[in-house]
This record gives sequence, structure tokens and C-alpha cells, in this order.
Amino acid sequence: MAAARLATTLARSSSAAAAATRLRRPDLLASSPRGFSNMAGSIERSGSGDITRVDEVGLEEVPDVIKNYHLCVVKNRRIDSDTIAKASQMKVIMQYGVGLEGVDVNAATEHKIKVARIPGSTTGNAISCAEMAIYLTLGVLRKQKVMDTAVKHKDLGIPVGDTIFGKSVLILGFGAIGVEIAKRLRPFGVKILATKRNWSSDTLPCDIDELVDKKGGPEDMYKFAGEADIVITCLLLTNETVGIVDHKFLSAMKKGSYLVNIARGRLLDYDAVFNHLKSGHLGGLGIDVAWTEPYDPEDPILKFSNVIITPHIAGVTEYSYRTMAKVVGDVALKLHSGEPITEVEFVN
Amino acid sequence: MAAARLATTLARSSSAAAAATRLRRPDLLASSPRGFSNMAGSIERSGSGDITRVDEVGLEEVPDVIKNYHLCVVKNRRIDSDTIAKASQMKVIMQYGVGLEGVDVNAATEHKIKVARIPGSTTGNAISCAEMAIYLTLGVLRKQKVMDTAVKHKDLGIPVGDTIFGKSVLILGFGAIGVEIAKRLRPFGVKILATKRNWSSDTLPCDIDELVDKKGGPEDMYKFAGEADIVITCLLLTNETVGIVDHKFLSAMKKGSYLVNIARGRLLDYDAVFNHLKSGHLGGLGIDVAWTEPYDPEDPILKFSNVIITPHIAGVTEYSYRTMAKVVGDVALKLHSGEPITEVEFVN
Repeated sequence: MAAARLATTLARSSSAAAAATRLRRPDLLASSPRGFSNMAGSIERSGSGDITRVDEVGLEEVPDVIKNYHLCVVKNRRIDSDTIAKASQMKVIMQYGVGLEGVDVNAATEHKIKVARIPGSTTGNAISCAEMAIYLTLGVLRKQKVMDTAVKHKDLGIPVGDTIFGKSVLILGFGAIGVEIAKRLRPFGVKILATKRNWSSDTLPCDIDELVDKKGGPEDMYKFAGEADIVITCLLLTNETVGIVDHKFLSAMKKGSYLVNIARGRLLDYDAVFNHLKSGHLGGLGIDVAWTEPYDPEDPILKFSNVIITPHIAGVTEYSYRTMAKVVGDVALKLHSGEPITEVEFVN
Repeated sequence: MAAARLATTLARSSSAAAAATRLRRPDLLASSPRGFSNMAGSIERSGSGDITRVDEVGLEEVPDVIKNYHLCVVKNRRIDSDTIAKASQMKVIMQYGVGLEGVDVNAATEHKIKVARIPGSTTGNAISCAEMAIYLTLGVLRKQKVMDTAVKHKDLGIPVGDTIFGKSVLILGFGAIGVEIAKRLRPFGVKILATKRNWSSDTLPCDIDELVDKKGGPEDMYKFAGEADIVITCLLLTNETVGIVDHKFLSAMKKGSYLVNIARGRLLDYDAVFNHLKSGHLGGLGIDVAWTEPYDPEDPILKFSNVIITPHIAGVTEYSYRTMAKVVGDVALKLHSGEPITEVEFVN
């Protein structure tokens, strides 16, 4: 019954899913004051062998104590090779989110530590990000900043916005998030174009032809850009995709079309985006992610009246956090009991 | 061919659909400088009988010149009985929007002038409003103001927002806008409850059972409120509905649930809304319409961090304006040629 009690603790409280790193989301810690809380979450066999401990320690202490722990869940800070080298009992490193930027995977592999990715499709991350993509799309179409100014100036009935209805939307990278976006955009009355490396993948839902009007590979992105009114980037950030939304791509987009990025900031080439905003070629930009994070609120790109930004919260919802906490809890329990761990994707 | 030429002029330019009133949307006037343009739009038989004229006059001049015109399209200002009394040649008065608040219908009837409503379902108004309802819903769920503060403070990954996914949504007033909202919300993964006076109406689409999980009459609104996480008001403002979202209704809503109003401001009882925000019972409020308009940006209700407002632009999109201009143009042409006018609903 001890294990059952622990499962509840882990699944019920997001703090159980916290990271051996500096927490940037202190509001997840029910018992912690607002501010920079530091915490180490871990699994440890107690004397009696049936207790899973979750400890809260300062970020600076992580290198000193990490040797005591079997499971580490990284949040917005990176766990580097020096720290990993000290994790002598570590079995699994995870990240509290769908990416793995916070983990030196090579170092983990070298030290025979498994690294696990929480899949976005089953945790609510993809759904949360898809909703955010639609929010940002509507925000740029309706000219959010201009609306705010109109309210302040007591103007009424301006600005004249644009509808999603009747538009062609290009989804760059049709993975779990792209699919969820397409499902939701369908009844808005749009044409959907999408690019993806491999359309035969088993991970795609069966009704893919209902969702996408025009499918293409990465090489089709320039041609598709010329047909789209709205481009939404959902690509993974890799050596191939860094800066992929560059001068060539932006110039291929229709004049006055809109760009939304809910994936990773560095998919976009800063200078190219800035220049296309300045020239007016880009009709609007909505981003949840930026080139450096947290992003300088005084950055010139944010001064354009048709640019809106949110603080990297596309996947940050009660729903996705609760679901990810459950995954972490299940992994911890299975690690404890020795059962096979199936909820996550091991990458090494 | 003259008529054809005129049709193009009317349909192509929003200025052709302008109002015999002070324009509050000067950006519709391609040839007009930014500012408060005043304009009278009308139809007039020229000497040769085949010219439809559209004139731009100052608002103050409207009472003096209205006698020369056959068609008047009112925008955000009201055409009163004194002005109507002078419209000796007037055949039809319309409003550039789906409401008729701008027309003294009784005075028009008295002077044997037909008053026509542009139906929302065929003009893009309902679609535009539905998109805006979803924008406001996502805005309150994701805590728009708190996100803006996070960006300013260089916070990252906060606030933790809420998803539409998994929620129950109550649509109060399931007319053209409500239907469009339900269609779009469906794939977000929601339960939809809706109230409507008459569900047997022929105006409903045939797949209504696909869209709505729980149908009710006006008397069910309190019971449904207790089951909903999000309430969206799409009611007409009438003597029965003014202040319908009152203390009783708000108290019947779940603690922490959200309210979105894209219909008319006075559907909501101000004091009741204020008190339920203050107590924390209401989790968030998103409004495109207010109790007086333009609304005081310093109103205490706007100071709550979970309240967002837009400047009465739900129906104000390129799409709906272009479509309404086409309706106005068609009415003008048919008035000119004597053909029956079928694009609009006559209310007197």
C-alpha cells in the first residue's frame, strides 16, 4: 500500500514532477513561496525499501546530491555533462515537457543513463499547443495590439480584422501538434497545406486526407508558402530546421500573410523576419517562443504593432501539467517496482 | 451596361456601403484620410435614369440632404425620427451590421419607409463573431493580461493556463452565431450545452444533434450554468434578455468558470458581474461589448487581471464588410431596377 500512497502523491501534485534544476515555474510548487524556488525531484529507496522520496533542494546543491537519486526530471534549466557524471545511481533522466533541450543526451548515454521523452500526443501538450496556435492566429488576424490601443483611445468598431474563414493555412511540420491544429481549424472553413518528411508514418491518424488538402515534403515549403495566407511552424528544432524560416521562405510567402510560431524560436531567422515586418511583406507575427528566452521585452521586433508574443506557455496548461505529472509518477512507480516503462519514449 | 458598372462600384468598394451618419470606421473609406470622415451613401436617379450615386456628406448635413436619397445605410450612429421625417423620397433604410439599434423603426414605419436587416448568417457576421468568441475564450483561459505581464517581467512558462479541451461550454442563445461557435468548438473536445426558445425552427442546420450535447429552453439556463465551465452569451438584446446574466445566473455558474460576451453589453448585469469577479466566483470575463460604448478604459471592471475587452469588433472583418457591401450593392441595384429585394429581412 505504500506504493499506492506514493502514486497518489506523485500524480496529484505537480511538485512531485519537479526537476533537479532551477524551477522557472514556482507556481507549480504548492508549498513554495512565489519566487525562484529550487527543487530536486527524485526517487530513492528508503531503509524499508518501499518509500519513494521527492526532495526539494537548491539548484546549486544539485551537483552535490544528484548521486543519491534514481530519477531526475529536468525543467527549464539544462542538466550538463558534469552534473550527469556525478549521478552515479541515476537510472532515468526525463524532461518535464516534450523537448529534451535540457538534457545532455550524449553524456547520459556515456554514463549508461536512459533519457526519456514524454510524448506530446498523449500528454495534452499537443492539444495545448494547438489551442495556443489558434489563439495566436486569431490574435494576429484581429490585430491584438491595435485593438488594445482602440480600447484605450475609446475607439469603437476598429480595427477591421481578418477571419480564419476562407484562408489557406500552411502547417510546417505535421506532427502531433500539427494534426491537432488541423483538426481544430477544419470547421473554420480553411484550406490546409502541410509539409512533413514522411507521410507514411504510422503515427498519423487515419483520417489524414480529411484534414489536409495538400500534402508535401520539406522541399514543397516554398511553393506552399506562396499559396498560404497563414503559416504555422510546428517543426522540431534540429540542425536542418534552425533558421528555416529565412529570407527565401518569407519572400515566398504572400504579401500581407501571417506567421505563427509555437515551436522553437530559432526556427525563424531573426533578421529575415525583422526585414519582412519592416517592409510590410509580413502581415503579422504571433510567437510563443523567441530567439533567446526569456525574451527582451524591448526587442525591436516586438515594437511592430502587428507582432504579438506570449511567454512560452503554449504547452503550459493545467491539463498538460496534470497529465505529465501522471506520466512522471507512473515512471517513478515502475522504476521502483521494476516493471517495464512504456509511457515514455527512450531516446538512447 | 451602366447598371453593371454601378454594381461593380458598389460591390467593390466599402465606401459604397457607407452610411448617412458619422462614420466610426474611417479605414473603410479608401479615398478618405484617417480621421472622422462623414459620409452619406445613397441611391439617386440621375437625369438619364441609369446612374446610382453615392455621396459623401458631413454628418451635420444629413438632415438637410436626406430628402434627395432613396436608400440610407446607417452605421454606428442613430438615425432619429426627426431625420426620418425629412426623408421624403426614402424607400429603404438599412444598417451596416446585423442589429437595428441605429434606426427608429417606428418612425420609419410611420413614414412608409421599409427597414431592412442584413441577416448575420449569410454575410459573414456570424462567422466573424464566432471566431471572436473563440479568441476571447482562449484569451481568458490563457490569462491574456497575466501573459502580457509575464512578458514584460521576463518571466517564462507562466501563467499556467487552461484548455478548451475537456470543458463544458454553455451557449446562451443558439442562433446563427451560436451554431457557428458550436461547429468550431466541436473538435476542441468539449461538451456543448445550449439554450434556445424554439429548437424546431427551420433556420437550424440539420446536423444540430451532432453539434449540441444538451439542448434546453430559456428556463434551463440556470441548471445548465451549473454544468458549464465556459458560458458564451449570443442572445439578442430584448426586454426579456436585458440583464439576464444577473446575480442568480452568475451564482448558478460553477466557481472559477468563465464568461464570454460577444452579443450586447447590457445582457450582463454590471453589479452582479463586478461582485462575482471580486469574490473570485467568476474565473474570467472576455467581452467584445460593454454597458456603454465606447467603454471607459478606466472602468473598475477592466482592472481585474482576469478580464479582457475588445472594442466591439466581433463582426468587424474584411470578410463580413465585403459581404455586407455586396448585399447593400445588390439592394441598391434592385431598388433601382424595381426587382424584388430578397437579400435582406424587412422588419416593418
